[in-house]
Amino acid sequence: MTTGAYTHDTYISPYTWRYGSDAMRRIWSEVNKRLLWRRIWVALARAQAEAGLVRPEQVADLEAHREDVDWERAQEIERDLRHDLMAEVRAYAEQCPVGGGIIHLGATSMDVEDNADALRLGDALALVRERLRAVLGALAERIEAEADTLTMAYTHLQPAEPTTLGYRLSQYAQDFLLDLDALEGAAAGVRGKGFKGAVGTSASYQHLLEERGVPPRALEERAMAQLGLLAYRVTSQTYPRKMDYQVLSVLAGIAQSAHKFALDLRLLQSPLFGELAEPFGRHQVGSSAMPFKRNPVASETICSLARAVAGLPRIAWDNAALSALERTLDDSANRRSARSARSVSSTSPSAG
Amino acid sequence: MTTGAYTHDTYISPYTWRYGSDAMRRIWSEVNKRLLWRRIWVALARAQAEAGLVRPEQVADLEAHREDVDWERAQEIERDLRHDLMAEVRAYAEQCPVGGGIIHLGATSMDVEDNADALRLGDALALVRERLRAVLGALAERIEAEADTLTMAYTHLQPAEPTTLGYRLSQYAQDFLLDLDALEGAAAGVRGKGFKGAVGTSASYQHLLEERGVPPRALEERAMAQLGLLAYRVTSQTYPRKMDYQVLSVLAGIAQSAHKFALDLRLLQSPLFGELAEPFGRHQVGSSAMPFKRNPVASETICSLARAVAGLPRIAWDNAALSALERTLDDSANRRSARSARSVSSTSPSAG
Amino acid sequence: MTTGAYTHDTYISPYTWRYGSDAMRRIWSEVNKRLLWRRIWVALARAQAEAGLVRPEQVADLEAHREDVDWERAQEIERDLRHDLMAEVRAYAEQCPVGGGIIHLGATSMDVEDNADALRLGDALALVRERLRAVLGALAERIEAEADTLTMAYTHLQPAEPTTLGYRLSQYAQDFLLDLDALEGAAAGVRGKGFKGAVGTSASYQHLLEERGVPPRALEERAMAQLGLLAYRVTSQTYPRKMDYQVLSVLAGIAQSAHKFALDLRLLQSPLFGELAEPFGRHQVGSSAMPFKRNPVASETICSLARAVAGLPRIAWDNAALSALERTLDDSANRRSARSARSVSSTSPSAG
Amino acid sequence: MTTGAYTHDTYISPYTWRYGSDAMRRIWSEVNKRLLWRRIWVALARAQAEAGLVRPEQVADLEAHREDVDWERAQEIERDLRHDLMAEVRAYAEQCPVGGGIIHLGATSMDVEDNADALRLGDALALVRERLRAVLGALAERIEAEADTLTMAYTHLQPAEPTTLGYRLSQYAQDFLLDLDALEGAAAGVRGKGFKGAVGTSASYQHLLEERGVPPRALEERAMAQLGLLAYRVTSQTYPRKMDYQVLSVLAGIAQSAHKFALDLRLLQSPLFGELAEPFGRHQVGSSAMPFKRNPVASETICSLARAVAGLPRIAWDNAALSALERTLDDSANRRSARSARSVSSTSPSAG
Repeated sequence: MTTGAYTHDTYISPYTWRYGSDAMRRIWSEVNKRLLWRRIWVALARAQAEAGLVRPEQVADLEAHREDVDWERAQEIERDLRHDLMAEVRAYAEQCPVGGGIIHLGATSMDVEDNADALRLGDALALVRERLRAVLGALAERIEAEADTLTMAYTHLQPAEPTTLGYRLSQYAQDFLLDLDALEGAAAGVRGKGFKGAVGTSASYQHLLEERGVPPRALEERAMAQLGLLAYRVTSQTYPRKMDYQVLSVLAGIAQSAHKFALDLRLLQSPLFGELAEPFGRHQVGSSAMPFKRNPVASETICSLARAVAGLPRIAWDNAALSALERTLDDSANRRSARSARSVSSTSPSAG
Repeated sequence: MTTGAYTHDTYISPYTWRYGSDAMRRIWSEVNKRLLWRRIWVALARAQAEAGLVRPEQVADLEAHREDVDWERAQEIERDLRHDLMAEVRAYAEQCPVGGGIIHLGATSMDVEDNADALRLGDALALVRERLRAVLGALAERIEAEADTLTMAYTHLQPAEPTTLGYRLSQYAQDFLLDLDALEGAAAGVRGKGFKGAVGTSASYQHLLEERGVPPRALEERAMAQLGLLAYRVTSQTYPRKMDYQVLSVLAGIAQSAHKFALDLRLLQSPLFGELAEPFGRHQVGSSAMPFKRNPVASETICSLARAVAGLPRIAWDNAALSALERTLDDSANRRSARSARSVSSTSPSAG
Repeated sequence: MTTGAYTHDTYISPYTWRYGSDAMRRIWSEVNKRLLWRRIWVALARAQAEAGLVRPEQVADLEAHREDVDWERAQEIERDLRHDLMAEVRAYAEQCPVGGGIIHLGATSMDVEDNADALRLGDALALVRERLRAVLGALAERIEAEADTLTMAYTHLQPAEPTTLGYRLSQYAQDFLLDLDALEGAAAGVRGKGFKGAVGTSASYQHLLEERGVPPRALEERAMAQLGLLAYRVTSQTYPRKMDYQVLSVLAGIAQSAHKFALDLRLLQSPLFGELAEPFGRHQVGSSAMPFKRNPVASETICSLARAVAGLPRIAWDNAALSALERTLDDSANRRSARSARSVSSTSPSAG
Repeated sequence: MTTGAYTHDTYISPYTWRYGSDAMRRIWSEVNKRLLWRRIWVALARAQAEAGLVRPEQVADLEAHREDVDWERAQEIERDLRHDLMAEVRAYAEQCPVGGGIIHLGATSMDVEDNADALRLGDALALVRERLRAVLGALAERIEAEADTLTMAYTHLQPAEPTTLGYRLSQYAQDFLLDLDALEGAAAGVRGKGFKGAVGTSASYQHLLEERGVPPRALEERAMAQLGLLAYRVTSQTYPRKMDYQVLSVLAGIAQSAHKFALDLRLLQSPLFGELAEPFGRHQVGSSAMPFKRNPVASETICSLARAVAGLPRIAWDNAALSALERTLDDSANRRSARSARSVSSTSPSAG
């Protein structure tokens, strides 16, 4: 079923090929996820070596094969185990004759998965931030250029009073600036789970470290420092899913500003308004029946994708609100699905 | 149709009588809205008096009647005008023989309505903040008290490993702390529209102030200072509706933490778990058929209301994303409806 | 806290006074709910009298006081019991010296509440249906009248090809017709819980009827026949909450058609299009700053309320999907809140 | 960017490889979409041949190459035209020296796309229906088998009264039966746009057929008959997007029943309840840290995916409610994205 290469004979998400940037797609690929998992296993092993739990040559072996993700082999093992992370542990271990046995020592799956998710979330937000700043830069130029361009302001879609195009554009810019503030706040708030074991109490690490006199928090700090990631102080089996909600709320906010901007552009490109127009490719076809038309296709796409993003915070809300006690797995499958959101957010504003 | 006194012969919202606090209800009452409108008209008149546009005795007249909201009279006028703010202007003017003529001078409705909304939003958030801090205080005490109380941790609703009750409670507290941070950020970000006229360009004020050499921004600053409210730098006819979205996203975040907490409590109060229980009134009836049962009714109510709150950010998203050009009125009616959200948010955590 | 008369000093929902029809408000009033409860208690008692469980004079006593709902007294009792239905049982019993003791015999609260909800849901849908048919009748007339009125058709907000106004209107009508079909299907599918006791097994009735040789299903059928309501064949403590979801999905569909119609009207009333206009009252004020403007206020209100309705099916989805085992009470509070939906649906199309 | 073969170096949707059935994936593949487009072009050409507009050998040429979809070539052309359907017209025309020139004669893109969407929607619903009936069959067997198996019923997660497992299962079955009814209603309601041209008036066909004395409706009927699809009587440029909303509401209803069932199973598989358990693979690993545990992973996945499906009707609602006048393209991109929903619906119940 999963040969690892998919063609258009089967369902391919539009975020794989039609919408989104290659950079964002790479971040949310399975291969990148496994590269991050291996990076985390190495960081943990290194901290455990410092604590005297494992030998340096074991760590060196793991490091030597850190980039050798073998998707096909891992899938083969997963078909038997039905557990993707344990399958990757075995695939990695097969590659590491010396260090293979100590991979994931004392860890629970979510120690690895959730730190990996926090790392790629951070990377994704950095990418969105860069694009958003580019949008703001482009808008700033146009605001200057159109500061004195008179135009009609409309309320209730009725002509009201004159304004300037620059002033109108400055409102879109203010919206995106509010988003940028929120985005930077969310990015700064990204934390990993750390290494806290099956229910957040660090019991398995405690057990291993008991005789060494090293507290689990010290081990966690060493490992996280290598990952360049802070950890939540307390966790269940996972990091608090509220973080996903807060991040998706901010991304939906960006989508909202993009929708407002694109909706206005769609109106203003109507010949009845006749004020602004999207760029239009030389060979581009307007419509199959009326090729002369200049349809605001990019803006319509922005509105369409923005509304898809608007529904995503609710999925994260559910995951945070409905997980029972130290965690239930009812978040997992829809978190895999919701990743398209970040692709969208990385595209839509730049399309404007 | 609107006699101003409603009984249970007609539809009465549960937020009027069953859920929510009296303090929150007062903030979102029509009478309070009109008190705020009048406060804003006085602030504007005072700033206009300083600029020499109106006379001090006119301002004094307005001040003298600032608290005399006459709901019945305003409704009478509105039935004819079909415009609630203009009806209030006339009702107020009838009370002010000297100053009546200068009420709302140079202003557009939204200069008054949106500043009033920002003011009561600020008051509402202050109330929620106070309740949230009380919840955190109560949790802190219990965390201390139960720091060493051993209990079973569950993943996938399966017994996993031991933890302590204090550690589990600290996770709820961490969620609420993240909410508190977000709430304080949102509260600090509350801005009014200022006094910018029909399309945000301050044209009407500019026109009035032209010969006085006073820039509209100076008038705006004086008036806003009296209201204790900052203004957005640029606006359309309204303040950016993104603010509503950001605030409701935070309130939905609080609802989310409350839902997670209450869901766990509902499980733990099951005799199968038998670990925690809600307080239960002395005469309270468990159920009509099985009065012996101890149902977690408060927690179930929290979950129920929390899910109603979860849908509200989307309404604000739409208002921000779909408003066309300098404003369309398609936000107004649902903003009136969504006010229940704040009532809910002021109740649910305290019920925990 | 609940004196039973509310003024605008406190929060009053806009559906109590600003939006919605009096007929719909009456259906969803607390007093009507209690009238329905009493009607159900009488129906049950009558069926029990036929089975020889209670005496005819007891039933007669209940009938004599069926309309005497005393809201204040019931609230007084509820403050002690914290259970609204048991409070009503006692208030009713106080009024019935002969029959008071047999009210609610063998029943669980939800036998009464859920049948009452099904009854008022049926009444509400009948009201919406009547209004929807009126909208369709009005549209049909205009379609005939404008069958040959040429107008420009727009795609992507660009002028495309000519069409007729009648043809355009027929598309709105087709949408509402699809809604009407769905509404009639939903109305025909309304079922009550019947009388099945605490967990749907009819155990309490079985117990009472054991020696009479009357099967509980026979009792249920007799009682339901008097209510003019069919019952689900199997239930948990409640009727399947899926019914609420299906009904709200249909109402949201009506709101959707109304939104599309009103959005088009808002565009067409813009002087740039200049094709259609809402009726405008003689003394009505356009806007406080620009009284000459003809703003499509009714259409904007329709769009605004429609978007509030769009979020309601999700609340019902949650109630159906998240209720655990034979029922949890996490549906109750938000079902009370969502009742505004029906008010909206009864207004919005008629406003078009 | 789009080589047509994607590996896990890039983002691949979980619906491509992890969730969903191969049969459903094939229906929603790009290749199948183009096969349907070609089928529609052939049906149109055949009807046009009967009307004397094109020659039989042209139709024969089109038929001969109907299955020869060349994805790579079409993509090449699309990169220049930026219009996927026109690119397919050209790719198809290159393959048909005789009939190439008459492909899409008189048609607008949406005549082809929307009929294709209606066809695959029908195929998808047939697949879901088959799975749903299988679920009901499986449930029916278990209901019979467990009709007398006593078990405890729970309300508010508190033990209440005894029931039987068969009775409890019959409630899930009743939910799915209600869904099946709704599904069959929705499937029977599927209609295509027909062949009505750019704005629904059939003008382009009218123009072509003028001298032949064939009314456009007759041409449409002949072409649709060959597709085995009914058409809406009136349309804008597209079929009414309400149809998507109604279908997705039904699919979300199935997801809802599946969620309720799976939630109960997750509780009942807890050793505290200890009543039911999912099948568990022989080599399957419980968790990386606690391999002995029996986690209800399939049920958790059902709940997780069900909540993702719950958000989809709203996307369709927006498309129906927000499309302006004879159509705006703001539905297109998110309709591409929402197709995952059908994959989910084809999986989740069968996983139960």
